[in-house]
Amino acid sequence: MNPSSSPLLTDHYQLMMMQSYLEQGMEETAVFELFVRKLPSCRNFMVAAGLEQVLDFLENLTFSPDELAWLAIRFQPHLIDYLERFHFNGDVHAMPEGTLFFPDEPILRITAPLPQAQLVESRVMNLLHFETMIATKAARSVLAAPGKLLVDFGMRRAHGAEAALLAARASYLAGFSGTATVLAGMLYGIPLFGTSAHSYIQAHPDEATALENFARSYPDNAVLLIDTYDTEAAAAKVVSLARKLSADGISIKGVRLDSGDLAMHARHVRRILDEGGLDDVAIFASGNLDEYRLSTLVSPAGSPAAPIDGFGVGTALDVSSDAPSLDCAYKLQEYAGKARRKRSEGKATWPGRKQVYRNYDVSSGYISHDIVTLEGEDRHGGEPLIVPVMRSGKRINGSSTLDEMRKRALAGYARLPQSLAAIDASSAYPVEISAPLRALANQLDVDTGAQPFQAPAS
Amino acid sequence: MNPSSSPLLTDHYQLMMMQSYLEQGMEETAVFELFVRKLPSCRNFMVAAGLEQVLDFLENLTFSPDELAWLAIRFQPHLIDYLERFHFNGDVHAMPEGTLFFPDEPILRITAPLPQAQLVESRVMNLLHFETMIATKAARSVLAAPGKLLVDFGMRRAHGAEAALLAARASYLAGFSGTATVLAGMLYGIPLFGTSAHSYIQAHPDEATALENFARSYPDNAVLLIDTYDTEAAAAKVVSLARKLSADGISIKGVRLDSGDLAMHARHVRRILDEGGLDDVAIFASGNLDEYRLSTLVSPAGSPAAPIDGFGVGTALDVSSDAPSLDCAYKLQEYAGKARRKRSEGKATWPGRKQVYRNYDVSSGYISHDIVTLEGEDRHGGEPLIVPVMRSGKRINGSSTLDEMRKRALAGYARLPQSLAAIDASSAYPVEISAPLRALANQLDVDTGAQPFQAPAS
Repeated sequence: MNPSSSPLLTDHYQLMMMQSYLEQGMEETAVFELFVRKLPSCRNFMVAAGLEQVLDFLENLTFSPDELAWLAIRFQPHLIDYLERFHFNGDVHAMPEGTLFFPDEPILRITAPLPQAQLVESRVMNLLHFETMIATKAARSVLAAPGKLLVDFGMRRAHGAEAALLAARASYLAGFSGTATVLAGMLYGIPLFGTSAHSYIQAHPDEATALENFARSYPDNAVLLIDTYDTEAAAAKVVSLARKLSADGISIKGVRLDSGDLAMHARHVRRILDEGGLDDVAIFASGNLDEYRLSTLVSPAGSPAAPIDGFGVGTALDVSSDAPSLDCAYKLQEYAGKARRKRSEGKATWPGRKQVYRNYDVSSGYISHDIVTLEGEDRHGGEPLIVPVMRSGKRINGSSTLDEMRKRALAGYARLPQSLAAIDASSAYPVEISAPLRALANQLDVDTGAQPFQAPAS
Repeated sequence: MNPSSSPLLTDHYQLMMMQSYLEQGMEETAVFELFVRKLPSCRNFMVAAGLEQVLDFLENLTFSPDELAWLAIRFQPHLIDYLERFHFNGDVHAMPEGTLFFPDEPILRITAPLPQAQLVESRVMNLLHFETMIATKAARSVLAAPGKLLVDFGMRRAHGAEAALLAARASYLAGFSGTATVLAGMLYGIPLFGTSAHSYIQAHPDEATALENFARSYPDNAVLLIDTYDTEAAAAKVVSLARKLSADGISIKGVRLDSGDLAMHARHVRRILDEGGLDDVAIFASGNLDEYRLSTLVSPAGSPAAPIDGFGVGTALDVSSDAPSLDCAYKLQEYAGKARRKRSEGKATWPGRKQVYRNYDVSSGYISHDIVTLEGEDRHGGEPLIVPVMRSGKRINGSSTLDEMRKRALAGYARLPQSLAAIDASSAYPVEISAPLRALANQLDVDTGAQPFQAPAS
């Protein structure tokens, strides 16, 4: 069994509610929307990602005989009958992957019979939440190190197999150049990068032999790891080695630093390599990097940039270390044709089916403000961000390739004013709520006897 | 394909190194050990977890025809030939799951031909790192809320499917009572818990009807969600409902609070329920909980404990929010019969095959100190923590059940002195390095011309 596609990737209460909905005959159309309540620490925008995996999940959602047998001893026969015939036949609207977005803006809407839309909540959120979080984290490295080669090195400390694979995908989508995770290369066509590990050096009788053997194994593209014992001494060995190997037509592509003061070592190593005639050997760095350290290396205050050509970004990327979760929600906004609103303390939502319009500053071309409206409001001039992507359980043709999503994200960064493109927190981007949407929220509160008009906490 | 078992869940450099090792004929026995360099923020100990998944992975590691075909256009024929016949036939030693451990203590040792031991590094670390991190996080909630029902609610914001499943497993192993993740119930036999969501309440014409319908669907075990609109008003509705339903033999098991000031609402709700004769209706709470909030609710300074019987702990648990990664490493400690040592700045390791002995205080029974030794040193009196678990690629009989691992963890907590059992950081537990191990490290440094005896950074 491939657990990633099991319909039992859900919370127990979803099945309990489904069983109860069926008893009450509550199978009318529900509309759920997924949105982020507020930006995590230091983020100025988010990058939508994970839709492809959500659509795969929805399109292939069936219960296996084993799963049904297991459920049958825990739930009523009417639920099991329903699940036996289950497939998702709802509609999905969403922001295409790679779209930049802001709090209170729905990035996904599911319109389906209530039991269906309820069942899929847990996995839909699980997928969109994770990839969006990682794409957003990756975007910050891309913006912090413009023009540098950035590679995802995070598999070993990603939270399991799927996290590693989807982190490779989401970071590539957000502008990374590739990943070290082999299976992500096979599954998603992402370019693969690799150097060697300290164990390779250690397993050899001495460092010089190790460096030579690796270079001979990869005569065009060896990146030699030089920090196992003494970085500068190893750089000098690389110079001698390059002279020796050039006779055999072998060239060294780069060296990797993985510990210590990377800026200092990079400067020393660059000088050693240049003096040895190896100006074309690149320096690649890794080791506890994130967007803050990249920024310090690439744009240090008051000193020249470290001479580093590319970076492996690992753990901090794959776990989104400074914000390992998003405050996102999947909320019922309409049922049986009537708008709905949750009003729990600090968690009130904007009701109804919504659209988001993006507006640009005419002179700069930068984004200026978004407006969240009810679907169907006339907002000509603004660019609608939410499009239909699945109808009656089937994908609508024309989904993007991963490279198209990546271009969309990069184009989005180019239209960010400098304050939003910075890795430090900026003042919030304006997201307006349209008057008709406010009026609907107000009316629902009046109808249900709450205090009129309570703005969501965000 | 089930990506969780693919041998391509590895870093690209592992395959590059394998190809080079094979070219050099470097297939002698390598010994790698996995350990944590230092405790993450506020942790006083760690809980070993994830070994079962590691052994599953190793025991079933083969390359499929598709994978081989994909690799064949990227690597040399001699590597493809080797991978075609590949299976893992090494030995594994490890601390049993549920064992408490400390920095510098190996929790896993792999002894196998170098190319095999290299290939599996990324996935072995990926699995052990994650489950150990989550079990350690979960242990803190167990210690912060003694005697309370604790349930994993984190699937939706776990980092993908596998993270959700393994977080359910690791938190149960560490002493949680169960999970909401259905597939974890099916795969691992973990008890499942569920209530209902706000959407259930919102989809109904009014809250009272929703509460009644849910109670009728689950006549023995309904936990009613009461914070969708006004918590105390809903609690009063539960009292009326209970009177109405008792005539039909239906009882309400509990109510759930999910927002606002949980302690205050719990006190109000407890009073409303008690005054309505519902002293046996439990109060369950959820919403951004972690061990710190549990501690404040269960053991508030200077005020009575909040009357809450159980907690759903979600995101903070499943992503280990305050420490979403561990500083762990999988390092070559011996190759071809010779001990090896990495000396990169701040990352030096203790060489050789090691054992860990735990010692107890005779009067209190609490753990007093551990000693890390070379394997085979005589340390009678101490309890050796590392045992053989796989020989020549096959599991050794007698692996524990999940409930046995859970008992091991709980027994471990009982032998922690109070300072280590606290959720705030304590002074470090003593982990000694034996004299023979220090001497070996020293000798290796002398042999390789380094400064004699450089203690690891931790």
